[in-house]
Amino acid sequence: MATLSVDLEVQAQATRAAARQLAQWSGADRQRLLSAIATTLEQEAPRILAANQADCEAATTEGIAPALYARLKLDADKLAAAIAGVRDLAQLPDPLGQIQIDRELDEGLILQRLTCPVGVLGVIFEARPDAVIQIASLAIKSGNGAILKGGREAICSCQAIVAAIAQALAEQQAPVEAIRLLTSREETLALLKLDRYVDLIIPRGSNSFVRFVQDNTHIPVLGHADGICHLYVDQAAAIEKTVTITVDAKTQYPAACNAIETLLIHEAIAPQFLPVVAAALHEKGVSLRGDAAAQTIVPMEAATEEDWRTEYSDLVLAVRLVPSLDAAIAHINEYGSGHTDAIATEDAAAAAQFFSQVDSAGVYHNCSTRFADGFRYGFGAEVGISTQKLPPRGPVGLEGLVTYKYVLSGDGQIAATYSGAQAKPFLHRDR
Amino acid sequence: MATLSVDLEVQAQATRAAARQLAQWSGADRQRLLSAIATTLEQEAPRILAANQADCEAATTEGIAPALYARLKLDADKLAAAIAGVRDLAQLPDPLGQIQIDRELDEGLILQRLTCPVGVLGVIFEARPDAVIQIASLAIKSGNGAILKGGREAICSCQAIVAAIAQALAEQQAPVEAIRLLTSREETLALLKLDRYVDLIIPRGSNSFVRFVQDNTHIPVLGHADGICHLYVDQAAAIEKTVTITVDAKTQYPAACNAIETLLIHEAIAPQFLPVVAAALHEKGVSLRGDAAAQTIVPMEAATEEDWRTEYSDLVLAVRLVPSLDAAIAHINEYGSGHTDAIATEDAAAAAQFFSQVDSAGVYHNCSTRFADGFRYGFGAEVGISTQKLPPRGPVGLEGLVTYKYVLSGDGQIAATYSGAQAKPFLHRDR
Repeated sequence: MATLSVDLEVQAQATRAAARQLAQWSGADRQRLLSAIATTLEQEAPRILAANQADCEAATTEGIAPALYARLKLDADKLAAAIAGVRDLAQLPDPLGQIQIDRELDEGLILQRLTCPVGVLGVIFEARPDAVIQIASLAIKSGNGAILKGGREAICSCQAIVAAIAQALAEQQAPVEAIRLLTSREETLALLKLDRYVDLIIPRGSNSFVRFVQDNTHIPVLGHADGICHLYVDQAAAIEKTVTITVDAKTQYPAACNAIETLLIHEAIAPQFLPVVAAALHEKGVSLRGDAAAQTIVPMEAATEEDWRTEYSDLVLAVRLVPSLDAAIAHINEYGSGHTDAIATEDAAAAAQFFSQVDSAGVYHNCSTRFADGFRYGFGAEVGISTQKLPPRGPVGLEGLVTYKYVLSGDGQIAATYSGAQAKPFLHRDR
Repeated sequence: MATLSVDLEVQAQATRAAARQLAQWSGADRQRLLSAIATTLEQEAPRILAANQADCEAATTEGIAPALYARLKLDADKLAAAIAGVRDLAQLPDPLGQIQIDRELDEGLILQRLTCPVGVLGVIFEARPDAVIQIASLAIKSGNGAILKGGREAICSCQAIVAAIAQALAEQQAPVEAIRLLTSREETLALLKLDRYVDLIIPRGSNSFVRFVQDNTHIPVLGHADGICHLYVDQAAAIEKTVTITVDAKTQYPAACNAIETLLIHEAIAPQFLPVVAAALHEKGVSLRGDAAAQTIVPMEAATEEDWRTEYSDLVLAVRLVPSLDAAIAHINEYGSGHTDAIATEDAAAAAQFFSQVDSAGVYHNCSTRFADGFRYGFGAEVGISTQKLPPRGPVGLEGLVTYKYVLSGDGQIAATYSGAQAKPFLHRDR
């Protein structure tokens, strides 16, 4: 382990140095680089698909779970879609060098706040080889280096993809070490300890996997473990519209993190609403688990305290009746995961209170929680969804891969001039 | 300890609930509240100063260090300055409810990204009772609750100040529990473990104290441990101008985190520059510690590897000769703390390379590092200076105490409409 960490540290230093070079490339040059990568990936498609075939065969021999197999399998369509994603990304505006503040502190003393790359991303993902293509291209677009650690089962696929990317980088005279692939399991933990060389960890995988990553690193983590989303049906909800929203939020893609897990219903509207929504959900194959009050209106399995904390990721929905908007907000803040929560109501004041008091990254009114997504928000790319309180929060686009620095340019200015009894005042004039 | 944690958890929950109420106050109302707090602090000044007198006497009996005593001592002028700070803060623009994104995803489906409070701040500080006034008012301005843990030696002063603030809150019908004071040492560690109820930790104190806080919490920490700032004197530096900058950056306030600790000099200019700057620094009482090459030009104590990693916070300056700009950048990225680093040069290309490749929150050209400060940047208030890579970075104003949420308003829109073969395209039209 000691040797491994030292090796990895040396490699990570090289990635950081390569990233620093990449950061100096212009936006147009990084755009061309991404186009070249897309072209090389297309040329190397047969090799990549063959490597994936080898991974799939080995995984089948080892008895891989069907869901994991589906994520591992890379067919020509999935690869073409990933490559199209690289071309789309190339076209997005350059996230670097954006001027956030441009201020004259005094005559000739100019302060600018400019976006710049974070540095080196540590990306750990299970199975999915197409994630390598996506993450590597996001890193290059944002001028970052990336150290990628793929699942053991996808090792041949990942190596073939990274070899193609490296070839494109070399052909374009770009720093090849900017994108690096790790393949051994021991390296995951070592990567999480590389505080000095890795600036941001992006985990892609199951809830428990993300939680493991969060618990084992001091490096900032972009992502979320749980997605326990709620729909609260207010007493002033429009029933038909709300039934449609409920069905979409639960069933349109139940495995998504932005699908609802708990339906809270104001007790005044429950006798009218619950039977209708229960029938509509039943038709889609959803099982309900309710508290005692809900069970008196529609027969369903009993929910326990544990249900309020569960992300089913499946066609199961917990149902709880609440006496008030306040009680609904309290339930969401207590049991939710801060992802996305919605209110259905025709009462604007109730919606405003919900917006203000629910502590979640997304607070919605009269629409499905399934809109919580970087592409749907118009970000062009999604790096992840964060449920932490501090920014970046919610669906995170390229913005999440850049930071900023303060650049101050003068011609000999010193602090003493602006201090003490004879202090010259600052101008603080935005330009 | 178990009981203490439970108590503290209950208290923290109450602070969170109070903060949620405060967050609903309008900007104008929070402004009025701050004015009322300033007035009450003025009225209670005799009581506060007497309490501080008691703290100072107890500290003297216990043989407090002079530097700590200076920070503990609150005289009428210092108190008046702190109260004036509250009035200034009241006048700043409201940091809440700012619209960062305003986008029509589709007809009638409106996405807004709005700034909102972080929630509850955990603030831990040594000695300085005036910090209570500053932090409590920053918290109220930004709609946050605050749990304050002051040093044991300042206990009477802190209690008197918080009592005055609580009185003003009560008189204005504001949630009194939004600002809470902890006083026992055991509570510090317990506070650092309150992930569920505290959203941001702000430590105020020595480097080792901040490092202790960073190492003992999973809650995000706003602050920095070290301030190891550099000035690099390029071969194309203007000597006279650069001497003035060097003297200011080292001596204008040597204990500040933005004072320089190491002077890097290009070996081509060192024979001309070093004797002049050494004489100017000597006049200000600065001791130099140089590498072998520097010592051949001007006699000085020898620097060791340890010196490059040391924040002297005193009239001591390490000196190293470097063969190139690249070497200077490498030194800064290796030994620096990512705070603020400057280049002195008349060569614009050298400055541009320095700006791009030095990984620090502040990169300066031809001016003193001492400008790295929220007030000097025109932020009106400074919450702290962050040396982490991700935002908020550098001097952090009120912006560091707010986050954002995505607010999506519709009239029954569902994701299914925008999915599959018949998918309706999104508008993504910024308003």
